[in-house]
Amino acid sequence: MPDPSPATRPTLEAVAARAGVSRATVSRVVNGGAGVRQPLVERVRRAVEELGYIPNHAARTLVTRRNGAVAVIIAEPEFRVFSDPFFEQQVRGISRELTAHDSQLVLLWVEGPGDYERIARYLGGGHVDGALAFSVHDDDELPSIVRRVQVPTVFGGRPGWPGATGELAVPYVDADNRGGAREAVRYLLGQGRQRIAHIAGPRDQTSATDRLAGYRDVLLDADPDLVAQGDFTVESGARAMAELLERRPRLDAVFAGNDLMASGALRVLRERGLRVPEDVALVGFDDMASVAEATDPPLTTVRQDIEGMGRLMVRLLMRALHQDGDPGAAAAAPGSVITPTELVRRASA
Amino acid sequence: MPDPSPATRPTLEAVAARAGVSRATVSRVVNGGAGVRQPLVERVRRAVEELGYIPNHAARTLVTRRNGAVAVIIAEPEFRVFSDPFFEQQVRGISRELTAHDSQLVLLWVEGPGDYERIARYLGGGHVDGALAFSVHDDDELPSIVRRVQVPTVFGGRPGWPGATGELAVPYVDADNRGGAREAVRYLLGQGRQRIAHIAGPRDQTSATDRLAGYRDVLLDADPDLVAQGDFTVESGARAMAELLERRPRLDAVFAGNDLMASGALRVLRERGLRVPEDVALVGFDDMASVAEATDPPLTTVRQDIEGMGRLMVRLLMRALHQDGDPGAAAAAPGSVITPTELVRRASA
Repeated sequence: MPDPSPATRPTLEAVAARAGVSRATVSRVVNGGAGVRQPLVERVRRAVEELGYIPNHAARTLVTRRNGAVAVIIAEPEFRVFSDPFFEQQVRGISRELTAHDSQLVLLWVEGPGDYERIARYLGGGHVDGALAFSVHDDDELPSIVRRVQVPTVFGGRPGWPGATGELAVPYVDADNRGGAREAVRYLLGQGRQRIAHIAGPRDQTSATDRLAGYRDVLLDADPDLVAQGDFTVESGARAMAELLERRPRLDAVFAGNDLMASGALRVLRERGLRVPEDVALVGFDDMASVAEATDPPLTTVRQDIEGMGRLMVRLLMRALHQDGDPGAAAAAPGSVITPTELVRRASA
Repeated sequence: MPDPSPATRPTLEAVAARAGVSRATVSRVVNGGAGVRQPLVERVRRAVEELGYIPNHAARTLVTRRNGAVAVIIAEPEFRVFSDPFFEQQVRGISRELTAHDSQLVLLWVEGPGDYERIARYLGGGHVDGALAFSVHDDDELPSIVRRVQVPTVFGGRPGWPGATGELAVPYVDADNRGGAREAVRYLLGQGRQRIAHIAGPRDQTSATDRLAGYRDVLLDADPDLVAQGDFTVESGARAMAELLERRPRLDAVFAGNDLMASGALRVLRERGLRVPEDVALVGFDDMASVAEATDPPLTTVRQDIEGMGRLMVRLLMRALHQDGDPGAAAAAPGSVITPTELVRRASA
């Protein structure tokens, strides 16, 4: 392992001397090489490599406040991050957009509340220019942390924590969860379904509570026993479906709060010998290809543009960072964005 | 969004004055709080919060060279990172061990060669204390980058790039891929199998070539047409199986280079009406629960302790970082570790 002690580190001057170029040229090359001719870039890179020179970005950061890196924080434990394709799709959109801005994505997740002190230290340490935060629960510490350490942050999903709509309003990107849910339930009504159940996601996330609200908007006098609680995982969808069939065996439709819960519900319906959609129509939410197209029958679902929302989050953040760095630009805080949803008809309803 | 301009930032002195404590106490609290009584910790934290003080970790980093963060770099595109459960298991082990060391994990991946310049800038920027690198291909730029920017790095998997065994040797953790492959093939021979095929992983990764070498160690005169090429994905396993059946329809066993390729091969065998294990015995490699236990029949496979290898990588790195920081400690470079494998018998062979 190389010796990283500062005393042995070669200077910018040493690199310039070795490459036979000016300090300014070395500086331009180590900061990306814009405007330097290719042969010179190569000479400088060779000198950098031979001397083991480390560009002092940490020092530069103190002055410019730009690290060229953005943290993506998923407020879920690692097993959810890797098993829920929702996160993969959103991260894909973010990753592509950050690459277009030549900014490095660093992914963090939250195993439990004990992680927050360490995350706060990292975010406050000046290692990233900003953050994108997802799946933030109503009692999460994350909003107060990013406020305290003053890291510009865009949230994925409408904030539901106390004060999030007042003077502490934060920019966010979300889908029209409530409108999408309404469309799903109206569609089932239009198909002649009369006992429409709902499998709801976590009570402390607005994506779930907004979809439940949309369901109730349409079914004003819905039987409370037709609503069961899940947590956005496949297993919770299966459990909720079993409960619903226990309570209301004659239900004829289910609107599940996401595709993963719909796939769990589908498994239970088939195990009980109920045909989908003949006996029970089933609609999901998300339209994740790896789930909605893979089930048998494929899922009718409410599509949200997950990857596109990821890209939008990056654009909002970059606009905010750019404004901070350029006092001449409009100083308005970036607005939040609600993206439209769309019902995608497949075979399950 | 808060104004991040340095001019408005409160100082350590201001926090000390507000909390009524010394600068040293504030400093200790913002650096973890060790040795400070709880009531004082709370008073300082309150003052930090009220003033919006940002501990100047970036400046501190220049002196101490400790960020409390470690980069995990997976040299694969994002879709592989999120779809191959191997990475999830290894990251899980790493995540737990880094938490135990109070170090923040930041995950990076590599969409393509164009990403390396940005990653080099990030790693050279002094944002992490070290790195753990996985799935590094033989022609990857990563080894030369971490050498150039002098970030202490432990590799997952035996390095196969030119010079990796000479003076540029790097510490790594790997499983006994060759020994495990030998055991799998010997087991199939012991079951009376006579035409044992192999589905190999990528030619530019030692985990794949070492397993192929183990297969050849036992079957010295193996028919070359019994070896087909895959790339560790399910689809490549299915394609390779189809090729093998085309070339050698009477094969009676397959040793696949990993469980994902074995599951793809299994699908093709079933589609052709071949019974596993009666007609064709099948052995995988990895023993990933989400794959090997989920197939029908469940896979006989070579187990490697993926999560444990992740933990070991962290321990090697921490030992190296600790030595760097303490000149009194033994200065020996950390050794590499090869962990044992074990054949796990299930129903497929």
